[in-house]
Amino acid sequence: MKTKLIILMLFIVYSTAAVASEKVATMLVEKQHFSTENFITVSGKTIAQVDIGWESYGTLNEEKDNVILITHYFSGTSHAAGKYQADDVQPGYWDALIGPNKAIDTNKFFVISSDTLVNANWHDPNVITTGPASINPATGKPYGLDFPVVTITDFVNVQKRLLESLGIKKLHAVMGASMGSFQALEWAVRYPAQVERLIHVIGGATMDAWTVAALEKWALPIRLDKNWQQGDYYDKQPPLDGLTATMLNITQDAMHPIIYNASFPDFTVRDQGALKDIRTLPKLSQTLAARALARAKTQDANHVLYLVRASQLFSAGMQGDVNEALKKITAKTLLLPASNDLLLRPENMRKVYEAMQELDKDVAISEISGGWGHLDGIFSISPKAQLIREFLEDDNHE
Amino acid sequence: MKTKLIILMLFIVYSTAAVASEKVATMLVEKQHFSTENFITVSGKTIAQVDIGWESYGTLNEEKDNVILITHYFSGTSHAAGKYQADDVQPGYWDALIGPNKAIDTNKFFVISSDTLVNANWHDPNVITTGPASINPATGKPYGLDFPVVTITDFVNVQKRLLESLGIKKLHAVMGASMGSFQALEWAVRYPAQVERLIHVIGGATMDAWTVAALEKWALPIRLDKNWQQGDYYDKQPPLDGLTATMLNITQDAMHPIIYNASFPDFTVRDQGALKDIRTLPKLSQTLAARALARAKTQDANHVLYLVRASQLFSAGMQGDVNEALKKITAKTLLLPASNDLLLRPENMRKVYEAMQELDKDVAISEISGGWGHLDGIFSISPKAQLIREFLEDDNHE
Repeated sequence: MKTKLIILMLFIVYSTAAVASEKVATMLVEKQHFSTENFITVSGKTIAQVDIGWESYGTLNEEKDNVILITHYFSGTSHAAGKYQADDVQPGYWDALIGPNKAIDTNKFFVISSDTLVNANWHDPNVITTGPASINPATGKPYGLDFPVVTITDFVNVQKRLLESLGIKKLHAVMGASMGSFQALEWAVRYPAQVERLIHVIGGATMDAWTVAALEKWALPIRLDKNWQQGDYYDKQPPLDGLTATMLNITQDAMHPIIYNASFPDFTVRDQGALKDIRTLPKLSQTLAARALARAKTQDANHVLYLVRASQLFSAGMQGDVNEALKKITAKTLLLPASNDLLLRPENMRKVYEAMQELDKDVAISEISGGWGHLDGIFSISPKAQLIREFLEDDNHE
Repeated sequence: MKTKLIILMLFIVYSTAAVASEKVATMLVEKQHFSTENFITVSGKTIAQVDIGWESYGTLNEEKDNVILITHYFSGTSHAAGKYQADDVQPGYWDALIGPNKAIDTNKFFVISSDTLVNANWHDPNVITTGPASINPATGKPYGLDFPVVTITDFVNVQKRLLESLGIKKLHAVMGASMGSFQALEWAVRYPAQVERLIHVIGGATMDAWTVAALEKWALPIRLDKNWQQGDYYDKQPPLDGLTATMLNITQDAMHPIIYNASFPDFTVRDQGALKDIRTLPKLSQTLAARALARAKTQDANHVLYLVRASQLFSAGMQGDVNEALKKITAKTLLLPASNDLLLRPENMRKVYEAMQELDKDVAISEISGGWGHLDGIFSISPKAQLIREFLEDDNHE
């Protein structure tokens, strides 16, 4: 009964958000291409050429001091808001927040977002990224596993080069969810003088053993697929079965039983096919596998492995001592964990809050509630819109 | 700080339990062998011969009315208590509960436990089970995937035949954890006249979409392994890589970050090997994989697939309508969910409690706290010992 009520409430929130966004004209956005050379990674390797896609919403002012950088999550892209075509089915993932007169007001701010290195969505025509599927200029063939390991810090350093190419020296704010929150935090730790505000959504300041192990489970199915061939599959069949299993893992890990179960109202445990033959998967498993396969087809398996590794190696400041890293932050900070997050658990962000408070930092925390779990950081952010608006427009912070 | 305190408290609980059990003489147990023919499964197939291992603690009284049946969990065996040899490293999994003068007092009760059909631990010399690795008398070769799908009800029906072979017509109690709780509940629903008491630990009354999908993730790596060969691997290399990945999934899903992280005190996110080469797994992943491989070697991959299926199809009474099933229960019932259970979530057992209360059943609930997560149902049961003792020895129930 209580569950049904929560779901109903959530649906109301979403419907309202949808109606509200329909009232304003669609914000059309265009993918831009940034290219940079001789990029040196934290692991000490040089990538001869890095190509990255980016998009922006709003206008860069003359002082170039109205910039908000949005950093994307593991499975995400730079498409944070707006639509490429007016008839796109979905706008960017935080369209509820970003746009004219919205919480992140593009009438005031120049909002910019870029694809990370090793972005998962290699086959998405709107994504430009550099990773193991890219051509290695030294061989004329895809890098495969010869691509260097890259880290969250490297993602940030590519963004820094992009911003520098636009003459931007300072961020009014940086904001990201999940793996995007790692990048946002890394910005604030590594380049404190350039980051005025930090919004860290469904994240954490460092990996623990639990999360490193959980992430390894995303990589395992890919490596098990006989087509993976140590990452050397670009002129052959890609490891789609393994990648499909990985998609199943990621999707469920990012959710919570409340919405998950509600999204299968016809689910029944009575399944004659699955009862009669072990070779017949439960109907639900078949449905999920078909959806996961569709998603897998837009992604590159090696890129997913590299994203797993980048996430596994994350610790703010990349120095192992989180407290030393947090000490460096001068940005006013807003932490937005999701109460039902089963992937990056809210207690880790409560710890960051306590640590920053002890360090006398300007930090606030507010929990996102909802039935999506980790994904509440994306889908249930609307109730935090006013809080975010005030946080961004408050100039009392030094 | 709070976390450290909880861990410290847990260690004290375990140490105390360990010291207490050292004081009493080791209870030596012996594996017994039960064989039955022409077993008809819920899926309508006949298994020509079923062989099952069992063990017992205490003495069957003349009236044969002092019987407590213990049903085992997914990765478990019939070894619920005692040791096979005095120098065994570990006793059975609920040795803290079962024994002379313990909560399940073998001076009073005849406690019996049997291996299920398709038990995972095919290569464990103390396990006797029948499943896809068994020889199909029709072909003289292992069944492989020709073995019929079996259900929790089938596990119960084999146990019923075993008990009948011993002249036992009634259970003083049936108790099980996790998949064992499904069997215990199924006993109470399907054979209410024969079950006087039910102790249902870290379970639930039916699968939901979330859990069916979660269980599928345990099966996926096995099917991805090129050595699996549609289950036909018995004269070749077994799918050990896939089974190892499955073990990693099961182990972590059954745990909680509190104890998980505490059990890797030397964990550091700074991992030069993993940073320098994508082919080098993080040290933690390497450690976990080695442990999982050792576990995988004792198991049979097809058996695990069949256990996944049996669990996925579980709904009390196997009729889809849980309320109708619960109506049939006449046993006095004790529900013991684990508060930090991330696998079979405690809210599902709270729902069972509410449903049974509305049906005016004799039901009580008490939550197990601890840092193990799902495994608190095994490792942190000691604080419930007195409650279990009173529940079993209270004769006021009709």
